[in-house]
Amino acid sequence: MSEIPYKIYLEESEMPKAWYNLRADMKNKPAPLLNPGTHQPMTAAELGVVFCDELVKQELNDTDPYIEIPQEIRDFYKMYRPSPLVRAYCLEKKLNTPAKIYYKFEGNNTSGSHKLNSAIAQAYYAKKQGLKGVTTETGAGQWGTALSMACAYFELDCKVFMVKVSYEQKPFRREVMRTYGASVTPSPSMETEIGKKILAEHPGTTGSLGCAISEAVEVAVGTEGYRYVLGSVLNQVLLHQSVIGLEAKAALDKYGVKPDMIIGCAGGGSNLGGLIAPFMGEKLRGEADYRIIAVEPASCPSFTRGTFAYDFCDTGMVCPLAKMYTLGSGFIPAPNHAGGLRYHGMSSTLSQLYHDGYMEAVSVPQTAVFEAAEQFARTEGILPAPESSHAIKVAIDEAKKCAETGEEKTILFGLTGTGYFDMVAYEKFHDGKMDDYIPTDEELAQYAATLPKMD
Amino acid sequence: MSEIPYKIYLEESEMPKAWYNLRADMKNKPAPLLNPGTHQPMTAAELGVVFCDELVKQELNDTDPYIEIPQEIRDFYKMYRPSPLVRAYCLEKKLNTPAKIYYKFEGNNTSGSHKLNSAIAQAYYAKKQGLKGVTTETGAGQWGTALSMACAYFELDCKVFMVKVSYEQKPFRREVMRTYGASVTPSPSMETEIGKKILAEHPGTTGSLGCAISEAVEVAVGTEGYRYVLGSVLNQVLLHQSVIGLEAKAALDKYGVKPDMIIGCAGGGSNLGGLIAPFMGEKLRGEADYRIIAVEPASCPSFTRGTFAYDFCDTGMVCPLAKMYTLGSGFIPAPNHAGGLRYHGMSSTLSQLYHDGYMEAVSVPQTAVFEAAEQFARTEGILPAPESSHAIKVAIDEAKKCAETGEEKTILFGLTGTGYFDMVAYEKFHDGKMDDYIPTDEELAQYAATLPKMD
Repeated sequence: MSEIPYKIYLEESEMPKAWYNLRADMKNKPAPLLNPGTHQPMTAAELGVVFCDELVKQELNDTDPYIEIPQEIRDFYKMYRPSPLVRAYCLEKKLNTPAKIYYKFEGNNTSGSHKLNSAIAQAYYAKKQGLKGVTTETGAGQWGTALSMACAYFELDCKVFMVKVSYEQKPFRREVMRTYGASVTPSPSMETEIGKKILAEHPGTTGSLGCAISEAVEVAVGTEGYRYVLGSVLNQVLLHQSVIGLEAKAALDKYGVKPDMIIGCAGGGSNLGGLIAPFMGEKLRGEADYRIIAVEPASCPSFTRGTFAYDFCDTGMVCPLAKMYTLGSGFIPAPNHAGGLRYHGMSSTLSQLYHDGYMEAVSVPQTAVFEAAEQFARTEGILPAPESSHAIKVAIDEAKKCAETGEEKTILFGLTGTGYFDMVAYEKFHDGKMDDYIPTDEELAQYAATLPKMD
Repeated sequence: MSEIPYKIYLEESEMPKAWYNLRADMKNKPAPLLNPGTHQPMTAAELGVVFCDELVKQELNDTDPYIEIPQEIRDFYKMYRPSPLVRAYCLEKKLNTPAKIYYKFEGNNTSGSHKLNSAIAQAYYAKKQGLKGVTTETGAGQWGTALSMACAYFELDCKVFMVKVSYEQKPFRREVMRTYGASVTPSPSMETEIGKKILAEHPGTTGSLGCAISEAVEVAVGTEGYRYVLGSVLNQVLLHQSVIGLEAKAALDKYGVKPDMIIGCAGGGSNLGGLIAPFMGEKLRGEADYRIIAVEPASCPSFTRGTFAYDFCDTGMVCPLAKMYTLGSGFIPAPNHAGGLRYHGMSSTLSQLYHDGYMEAVSVPQTAVFEAAEQFARTEGILPAPESSHAIKVAIDEAKKCAETGEEKTILFGLTGTGYFDMVAYEKFHDGKMDDYIPTDEELAQYAATLPKMD
């Protein structure tokens, strides 16, 4: 038997005491958020209307490399962290590869994903500021569930706008949120001006993430004692998620293991940005080199086929503009797309790093993703979320290459969550009803044409 | 901060290398299984028609206190074990109790429960015997899922008869089993003689566990290279599940903690028997004393209102007779009962121990169980299975008593699984549509009258 156990758990005392702020080590900082009206950088005061004060500070802080994790958040982390760093012995054997495969598994909590890492931080700062509650949007439901759990813990109100098609197709996700005391509204709704407008224009719409964001922001801004919180894309979210990478690196360091490549799925970038953070820090500082690979769905290819430009973060165009790889804020993946990661844009931080050549990106079709998911489930015993399975697919591909070349590469990938609430997608896959629609260049050009004109 | 961490994980090297066979330390051994025709003890040869040879040996072995866990099973255990022993700091604080609450959490695997501990062992022995596949029944789906995972790992066929009402109401459970390559048939089915008979007599029946057992046994016995496996009740299952208690005790011992009471939910007894095993061993040997409390649903009260007698294990009356606390093999809990633990009987081993005064039993109504479940979810962050929530309910009650008396008791309970596939029950609870039907003495007397006459 190898000396490295199947699962590496850090001791409580080894858990990170500070988040790592990747931006501090970037020479080219991510471009600032802009006011959508004036196209000037958003000030702390402007952002403070929407977000909690402390989170605004974190959003704007691109100089401090470490930001202390408050004790209350560390205590909550102790309930479900450290997450295991798993050596995929069974998968390696199955693939007959000399590669060494590790994955950081973030699904062992009731929210089912890494989203809880930022949810609890955002709820904490909201509580500390004396707020009554927060609003947010959720698509597949992982973020909404995580936020509901965090708000229940701190006894904050939690109002979730859930994309209508998910609200109807995922009643169990909704029910988990209710268990945690959240109110869940299908979006678009008649509760907001933007919702009413969209419903008037498109009475049969099943909603979109961009639209739900607009509604959540409207309610937060218009309600005394409320703020809006977001589960991905933002710098603050990547900051909180750095706990994933910090734990993973500490666990590998304990055994003297250095990954050759780090692979993560990318939707808005929260998981990938968190997983790679300390490794990318070393790379930026010239202390080490790693291949870093973002994996996105072929049906929503913001890195691989998007434009690096300022764009709206939401459909209603009430949010600040962010400079990012984007497909255009009107872009919605084909309805048959089951694999999550549906956001039109990408974290500004990751976009800048990709633009500067610090990481690679690859897009994969969803049938291949589900094939990898099923193989992984049968071999490693964990039923993965469709999102996470994008990373699995590329990790398996890389391990197979090693089997051909005989190279003993060390692969680390992020297993962001479990697929227990995604069985409708698995059913489609089993029944052969899944296809691999990929947008044409013409379609993408149409959406790209809607990017805002910047002076 | 206390010195005891939120979660105690054993090192891989500290994981149990042998299961503990509680029966070896019992003065009054559990009564043997009887041939339903002759009322004579089942021989190994007779049992070998239905079960794998090695499992028959384990079933009949009431003398060896330790049985080595084969390396292949220990390797599989390493993928999802050790399970955490959690100190419920947040719950203690919420209850404002001086009690110290610990729970052994078995839900952090894709099967969502402790059932995997025995599934992998049973699949291993089937593979080792050169069998092609196994059959089983599943109600709520936890056992079927666990067995599917185990069979996928060892590349065995897996045929699951799923109680029809669950098959229809829990399509996601079914889909998880399909992901692991199992074939899932709603029971009663037209694939067996017993199924055909039951369907002819009761065309609209939604099935029962006892009926699904009969179908699974019929197929196993009638198909070359197949055997039947069962997820609870049997001695072999309790043996495998002892890994729960052995890990829990090792974790507590590391910190010098001795529980005053141990609480577990009880359906067929697999979780409870496993959790208490090494503690009960000490009690039987006179080395220590513990309060041991079985918690069952008020709607299916085999311990608290059943009869200690020989009874059929299945509806079709094809299985051996077992001496146990039973409500009668025709008993089915009211259809509104959502909390699992629906089996009419109880493990012979646990029945004997209860009969001899080594443990207590209490029954709880389901609304109170779901109230405890929700409080636990909001405080400890884990959404519990309805079954597990029976133990939570009594643990909270005991902790509240300590808050009144000021006693600093140490409570250990078993958190057997997660409730992600039980959201229909949670929805009922949230919508106020759950009630607390409890069978009348007259009803129970009717079922008890169906117990087989023994000479």
